[in-house]
Amino acid sequence: MDTRRSSGNRRSTVSVSAGWKGGQVSGKPQRKPRIVMKFGGTSVANVERIKAVAQRIKREVDSGHEVAVVVSAMAGTTNQLVEWTRAISPLHDAREYDTVVAAGEQITAGLTAIALQEIGVPARSWLGWQIPIRTDDAHSKARIQHIETAELVRRFEEGQVPVVAGFQGLGPDNRITTLGRGGSDTSAVALAAALKADRCDIFTDVDGVYTTDPRIVAKARKLDKITYEEMLEMASLGAKVLQIRSVEMAMKHQVRLQVLSSFEDKPGTLVVDEEEIVEKEVVSGIAYSRDEAKITLLSVPDRPGVAAAIFGPLADANINVDMIVQNVSEGGGTTDLTFTVSKGDFERTLKLLEAQREKLGFRKLLSDPNVVKVSVIGVGMRSHAGVAQRMFKALAEKGINIQVISTSEIKVSVLIAEEYTELAVRSLHTAYGLDAA
Amino acid sequence: MDTRRSSGNRRSTVSVSAGWKGGQVSGKPQRKPRIVMKFGGTSVANVERIKAVAQRIKREVDSGHEVAVVVSAMAGTTNQLVEWTRAISPLHDAREYDTVVAAGEQITAGLTAIALQEIGVPARSWLGWQIPIRTDDAHSKARIQHIETAELVRRFEEGQVPVVAGFQGLGPDNRITTLGRGGSDTSAVALAAALKADRCDIFTDVDGVYTTDPRIVAKARKLDKITYEEMLEMASLGAKVLQIRSVEMAMKHQVRLQVLSSFEDKPGTLVVDEEEIVEKEVVSGIAYSRDEAKITLLSVPDRPGVAAAIFGPLADANINVDMIVQNVSEGGGTTDLTFTVSKGDFERTLKLLEAQREKLGFRKLLSDPNVVKVSVIGVGMRSHAGVAQRMFKALAEKGINIQVISTSEIKVSVLIAEEYTELAVRSLHTAYGLDAA
Repeated sequence: MDTRRSSGNRRSTVSVSAGWKGGQVSGKPQRKPRIVMKFGGTSVANVERIKAVAQRIKREVDSGHEVAVVVSAMAGTTNQLVEWTRAISPLHDAREYDTVVAAGEQITAGLTAIALQEIGVPARSWLGWQIPIRTDDAHSKARIQHIETAELVRRFEEGQVPVVAGFQGLGPDNRITTLGRGGSDTSAVALAAALKADRCDIFTDVDGVYTTDPRIVAKARKLDKITYEEMLEMASLGAKVLQIRSVEMAMKHQVRLQVLSSFEDKPGTLVVDEEEIVEKEVVSGIAYSRDEAKITLLSVPDRPGVAAAIFGPLADANINVDMIVQNVSEGGGTTDLTFTVSKGDFERTLKLLEAQREKLGFRKLLSDPNVVKVSVIGVGMRSHAGVAQRMFKALAEKGINIQVISTSEIKVSVLIAEEYTELAVRSLHTAYGLDAA
Repeated sequence: MDTRRSSGNRRSTVSVSAGWKGGQVSGKPQRKPRIVMKFGGTSVANVERIKAVAQRIKREVDSGHEVAVVVSAMAGTTNQLVEWTRAISPLHDAREYDTVVAAGEQITAGLTAIALQEIGVPARSWLGWQIPIRTDDAHSKARIQHIETAELVRRFEEGQVPVVAGFQGLGPDNRITTLGRGGSDTSAVALAAALKADRCDIFTDVDGVYTTDPRIVAKARKLDKITYEEMLEMASLGAKVLQIRSVEMAMKHQVRLQVLSSFEDKPGTLVVDEEEIVEKEVVSGIAYSRDEAKITLLSVPDRPGVAAAIFGPLADANINVDMIVQNVSEGGGTTDLTFTVSKGDFERTLKLLEAQREKLGFRKLLSDPNVVKVSVIGVGMRSHAGVAQRMFKALAEKGINIQVISTSEIKVSVLIAEEYTELAVRSLHTAYGLDAA
């Protein structure tokens, strides 16, 4: 039997946006451990890899887990589909864009279900509109609002593995929505939250989260565990392992995430709540982002509302400002203001500021796109003094000048000249004792 | 506004399987002429062609038509998707197969809608499950049962062009179904019937239906009109212009079909009811099929039930028998039986018959895969004597031996040695006065 019940009465629904705390065992006693396994584009890039993915799933099923699978499109497919929509119209209807690009995950969901059946694992594909995974109507960047799980759970009990097309949902207009690039990670975490899964495994082409970029630091170490907060800082600072929204959602719903390789059979990195980590490192990792450009306005009139006057027009133009530092200037009644924007917004920002030079009243504008932001990250620094000081000292010893500093509870970031990137990251990695033995 | 009404009350539905007679003007007075335009895989093979298709559609809209569009997958896409399903499992779940292959039409539907919007034509894509196009549950070869048209008609009134993904529907299990290869033709005809369209234009890579295969006969002529019955015979005899089921459906619902080229801007061939054709040709075309293999059983016991004993096992093995001739044999009490099967079933048929040789009691089995079936087709032969005689005479004049003859109301078919194919088709084309001036 393969018909979905459409009677409203039987449905139990879990609203992902509610404040539900996951991870606990559900109402039924002695439930099998339940995991969500998500496979990215390189993991399902061709027929052979899809077959390998099926074997990986089968092992989890055979070891007594209830498994739900989420798949991305085959590597390259989404780019091809996006390219076609752009070639036909640069300003295309986002609803049609969603219809086109969602086809990629539809294909892999079906193929993966076939691969599972072929090796004796009962499975079926589920598209966003079939479950349904309800989203808002923000086509091409929709947010999941609600996942109906009753039918999936019923089929778990029959031993069937649902293979869910990632990245897609159903909008209030009864049309396909997509969640933005990398959205399959979010699909997986949302499904794990709704199913109250014990873990959500994100299979990708790297084997975990590292203390820093292994391409720069040969002695970078894979982390066994990292907190949600640290992972968020790592992700937003340039370590492109997980979509940021998926980590935020995992943190909110307390979904235990694991990042691991689909090509090697070994544990990856667990992303968990701080409480799960007994021995907290003061610093867990060093991140860097080259996507920064620095702008300094000299001798800005030091009066109330001047910051709003400067940053208001940038916000209106959809330009994100990252680091901001304001210093008292030497001359009386004026101040110097330094901030960073992404390299892609750099030229546009300069034009906007020059156009309002008289209104803003600054004396001179300095700019430098050849900068990098380097950050040390760790929840342990909340309870340890001197973390920032060690950073400044390590950089000073190498003769690296710090241009801007910004700090948060769990990170310290500095802006330095781009040419020092590798040297700075390596020095800090050693200074905080992160080097592999 | 882009939300589908889901209230049951407002929906008017046209059941395609009902005996409704289309073609008339609907209840509303002064309705715009309404056409369905279907574009095959070569017509939407890439971004440039999709843009050209959009221009073609715009011309019909600008000239005052209400237009609904049906698209196939980009040429090659369906083959690639089918190949993947087979590579993963030769015996795959037809429901998953449907999920995978339907993605092709989903992509072109979205892209074509974008292309239309780009040139100022209001348009939106519709997937099988969104309309919905309801089918039975025969996955991978489903039949359309019902198309809901109220919402499409409402949008016609707002000037919107629906771009419908061909080949796909929604099964009773709430899963995607597909209609079998070439199924987009059927989607188009069913939609035309449900919408009571004035015409259904099938855009393809040939510019119409010819009196015979132009690759064999240089003097083949494009037909302006052909009857449904003739088209069915032409299609089933090897002229691969339209899916047979689509012609059957068009005949049943009296949908006026036009086959035309998407690359040239000129009229194609109209497939219509016999009554619409005033000057009926006695013979409209010459068809041939090389996919025939001949088997003769000599001295079969001439008793009741012997034909059933022979053909029963073939039917059980899903082998279609085409031409059958039974002659009185020279010896008393026995008969000779000749029939044809498709070349793909030839070896299997021989094995099945040999295995039952004793039970069937024939003396000898003769076989010949090197045969071709040549047919002359025309509704006019109903009222004209001597059509078959002219065929026999023309073939005899060229020294071509006729092995088997079969006739129906509107065709005469003969089986001859394959090496005479071209000669026979050319001779008959001339004999019936079909040659272009």
